[in-house]
Amino acid sequence: MKIALAQLNYHIGDFKNNVTAIREAILKAIRADVDLVVFSELSICGYPPLDLLEQKVFINQCKKSLDELAGVCNGIAAIVGSPTINPNPSGKNLYNSAYFLSNGKVLDVIHKTLLPTYDIFDEYRYFESNTEFRIIHYKGKKIALTICEDLWDEQPFDNEFEKTRLYTISPMEMLKPHQPDLIINIAASPFSYTREWAKKEIIVSKARKYAVPVFYVNQVGAQTELIFEGGSMVVNQKGEIHDLLHHFKEDFRIYDFGDVMEEISSNHSASADIYKRINDALVMGLRDYFLKMKFQTAILGLSGGIDSAVSLVLAVHALGNKNVYALLLPSKFSTEHSVTDAKTLADNLNVQYEIISIQSIVENFNDSLRVYFRDYPPDITEENIQARIRAIFLMAFSNKFGHILLNTSNKSEAAVGYGTLYGDMCGGLSLLGDVYKTDVYKLAEYINRDKEIIPRNTIKKPPSAELRPNQKDTDSLPDYEILDKILYYFIELQLSSEEIIAKGFDGNTVERVIFMVNTNEYKRYQAPPILRISSKAFGAGRRIPLVAKY
Amino acid sequence: MKIALAQLNYHIGDFKNNVTAIREAILKAIRADVDLVVFSELSICGYPPLDLLEQKVFINQCKKSLDELAGVCNGIAAIVGSPTINPNPSGKNLYNSAYFLSNGKVLDVIHKTLLPTYDIFDEYRYFESNTEFRIIHYKGKKIALTICEDLWDEQPFDNEFEKTRLYTISPMEMLKPHQPDLIINIAASPFSYTREWAKKEIIVSKARKYAVPVFYVNQVGAQTELIFEGGSMVVNQKGEIHDLLHHFKEDFRIYDFGDVMEEISSNHSASADIYKRINDALVMGLRDYFLKMKFQTAILGLSGGIDSAVSLVLAVHALGNKNVYALLLPSKFSTEHSVTDAKTLADNLNVQYEIISIQSIVENFNDSLRVYFRDYPPDITEENIQARIRAIFLMAFSNKFGHILLNTSNKSEAAVGYGTLYGDMCGGLSLLGDVYKTDVYKLAEYINRDKEIIPRNTIKKPPSAELRPNQKDTDSLPDYEILDKILYYFIELQLSSEEIIAKGFDGNTVERVIFMVNTNEYKRYQAPPILRISSKAFGAGRRIPLVAKY
Repeated sequence: MKIALAQLNYHIGDFKNNVTAIREAILKAIRADVDLVVFSELSICGYPPLDLLEQKVFINQCKKSLDELAGVCNGIAAIVGSPTINPNPSGKNLYNSAYFLSNGKVLDVIHKTLLPTYDIFDEYRYFESNTEFRIIHYKGKKIALTICEDLWDEQPFDNEFEKTRLYTISPMEMLKPHQPDLIINIAASPFSYTREWAKKEIIVSKARKYAVPVFYVNQVGAQTELIFEGGSMVVNQKGEIHDLLHHFKEDFRIYDFGDVMEEISSNHSASADIYKRINDALVMGLRDYFLKMKFQTAILGLSGGIDSAVSLVLAVHALGNKNVYALLLPSKFSTEHSVTDAKTLADNLNVQYEIISIQSIVENFNDSLRVYFRDYPPDITEENIQARIRAIFLMAFSNKFGHILLNTSNKSEAAVGYGTLYGDMCGGLSLLGDVYKTDVYKLAEYINRDKEIIPRNTIKKPPSAELRPNQKDTDSLPDYEILDKILYYFIELQLSSEEIIAKGFDGNTVERVIFMVNTNEYKRYQAPPILRISSKAFGAGRRIPLVAKY
Repeated sequence: MKIALAQLNYHIGDFKNNVTAIREAILKAIRADVDLVVFSELSICGYPPLDLLEQKVFINQCKKSLDELAGVCNGIAAIVGSPTINPNPSGKNLYNSAYFLSNGKVLDVIHKTLLPTYDIFDEYRYFESNTEFRIIHYKGKKIALTICEDLWDEQPFDNEFEKTRLYTISPMEMLKPHQPDLIINIAASPFSYTREWAKKEIIVSKARKYAVPVFYVNQVGAQTELIFEGGSMVVNQKGEIHDLLHHFKEDFRIYDFGDVMEEISSNHSASADIYKRINDALVMGLRDYFLKMKFQTAILGLSGGIDSAVSLVLAVHALGNKNVYALLLPSKFSTEHSVTDAKTLADNLNVQYEIISIQSIVENFNDSLRVYFRDYPPDITEENIQARIRAIFLMAFSNKFGHILLNTSNKSEAAVGYGTLYGDMCGGLSLLGDVYKTDVYKLAEYINRDKEIIPRNTIKKPPSAELRPNQKDTDSLPDYEILDKILYYFIELQLSSEEIIAKGFDGNTVERVIFMVNTNEYKRYQAPPILRISSKAFGAGRRIPLVAKY
């Protein structure tokens, strides 16, 4: 039996293009005498469709698209993901299903059992859980068809308070008595640089446990903030990786089932340099956002600092240097080297930029406010005015020319609220909002691995917002080496202050950092969508009540 | 048996004050010879705690608080809501529980069975569903103890595509064989002006169906955007409303069980004028946000239009006129009457205001941009610059004096994107973001019911953003009477364009409105939290992918 894995980039709700892409892959498989071609979870509509699943027209379009694709399946079978209306009078309205299409019709349909509702997942909001387990028989083989989380009945968790067994049922244990010959898993599993190993381990452990090959097809491409890496794989019955599909791009490969069973596998390593992975994830995330939103050009404010420098490089890689514009917006607090470094970078990348001084407008605001503020010393107010004037310039270019403003804030500053709401926190998409400052530096080193694209001075100088004379980030914040570790323990691992202090950090520093994270929820509430690369990004995957008392 | 209902306003995570409030109510009940005092769902920690439930320290504090309260229960029983750790090796980490405290200890604990995951609810994210059903025996009575949604196994839905039976189990059907003498329901059910009748109907229908009284205790108070109205009630075995507790404030009442069973009930009507309800909800929502965030003073931009006028009145009612400030920020496009109307309103309310012209700064920006924009006609860019300059002034006062900026956008403009991101969309909290424009007018009439607080001219003049000469909202939008109906059908009822057109609206108008709603998701993504008064507000209860293709 020949099995093809089709790792495609879907666009949520773009039924026309999704169906076309699936149809073409089926036809390609037919031409190659493939018996079964497998697509990823909810491939018909793209994952995650969220509340579009509550719209009857959306579900009707899924049904219609499925019928259309069934008609293409002559002399071949295809597994395609789609929501299904739950016909029972009680329970959630839908199932999350895998359709087995063959001979022009739906031969079988299997519903998802384990519905993730942690982090960015909300599947139980829409779907009823499957309770019936059966094998699909096809060309003499018994297929255990599972959907993503169905194989994750036991999983490692970052937060020690969480459980490895979130579910009271194991779909594979239910299917095991039927002695399947292979497991197929169709997935939409988002990228996280900390979980690559864990994903591989789950697939490998299931192959080993049930002593059958696993064919795992993941979605590729970004859907707003969620980046799906692809990285589909075939693991043989010994738990060796027979083949690994591309990360961050579409792929289509064909396997002979006998070869997978018999060949001595090369046991591919599924790992790569994490900064390469993060770089590739962010570039694809940005490119896909523009493609799917039909945006062409981007703009950002270039300060001479490391965050805007790395953001500009990512943007050029994603969109091309002719589609990216930069504004340099110095005030009297901007140092000479900031402007020079920004210009050098823009020249290195051959990106068009303009320099506009904000100083006269800063003074104009201060003049207008002097009568009201005269009894008060300068403070954060005057600093924020500068950041907000820059935002007005950037948004003016955005409005006039249709350039989308890219947000360049990093995760460390988003965490502690070291940024100006409606100022440098503006933008249509945040590139680095899930990348800690210390990782931004490592990303810069990765970018500069072959030649100096980002000026050395940008990397070497102490970070500064340059909103008052001689300002440094360390005036307000601990060293990033310390800060980022505390943030990681608190945000990703959800450790308490006591547990973090017990790891050897200064008690006051830990308490102060956690206080800043907690009291800045209100700023992050209004932040742009953030490309997610970690296991816990700010945004929909982390839901903290604003009014909570800590 | 004497039963007391304690309808209290909790603060999420404020264990000290929550425990104090519960303890005082228990002591008050003891003094009045009460046998059982009932508190609302998750009363220990406040509802909804969201991802704080994933923090071990948070759960430990719940446990500690519960032990402390058990110690107070001497000669009385209390029902208190709290999360419980699920001791089973598999399944979600927690239960959402009702603790029955008596004689200084936990006598019993009942877990919630039906876990809502629609709209603003995410309970299955945290909680495992109960599967064991038992009655609590106390002082010769058999109590069916249920938690909020447990009584909502059948419920009316706005969206016809949804089901009346979302769950495959009915807790009351499981408890019925034990022949309970009464039902207690502890709840945290948020306010919606369209669902008041439905809530009453559910309680009444359960009392009638099982022919026993229902004691329903709801949380009161706001938690960020969610407003809990209280409105607890006692319904007798015939389904008559024996008593109804206050809306939008704390309450404590004592009932003799025999009286509830025997007395001829007055059958209170649970309904009130909806604009009174909306007014009271918004005032409490704003006040609670400030109290729980420890904010004192507010500021807003007063344009002379209806939205900022109604917002100012609500703010004065919530915070007092000494705690609210207004800025009038005219440009050359501001009409004379706008400034006059705004001043009249501020004077009527005795609110301090300042007038600052933005004109010279507008010109300063335009001068700086002229060289880049000279080949392009004025457009939305120049309009947005004005709105964003106003935001800088308002935020400067906010930063300097600690006044929290109130957002004054209404639901109609939020829906169609008729507002400037980082301009008039700024603010710490949106008061009217869930109130359609036509309802803002009705709210103004309600506010003016006894005397003219909001100037008649503000109510009568055609709505205008005043960002270009003679601009009117109807230049860009359908009449609000039409627009708001289409929006209601699309957002609250989730009807398709075909279904809305079939109700008699112009096809092009419907398509255009839906297109505007869909393509402005990105703006709403960055909007402030919106006080929720409808069954479908923008925010966490409505999750639409930004990149979706429509």
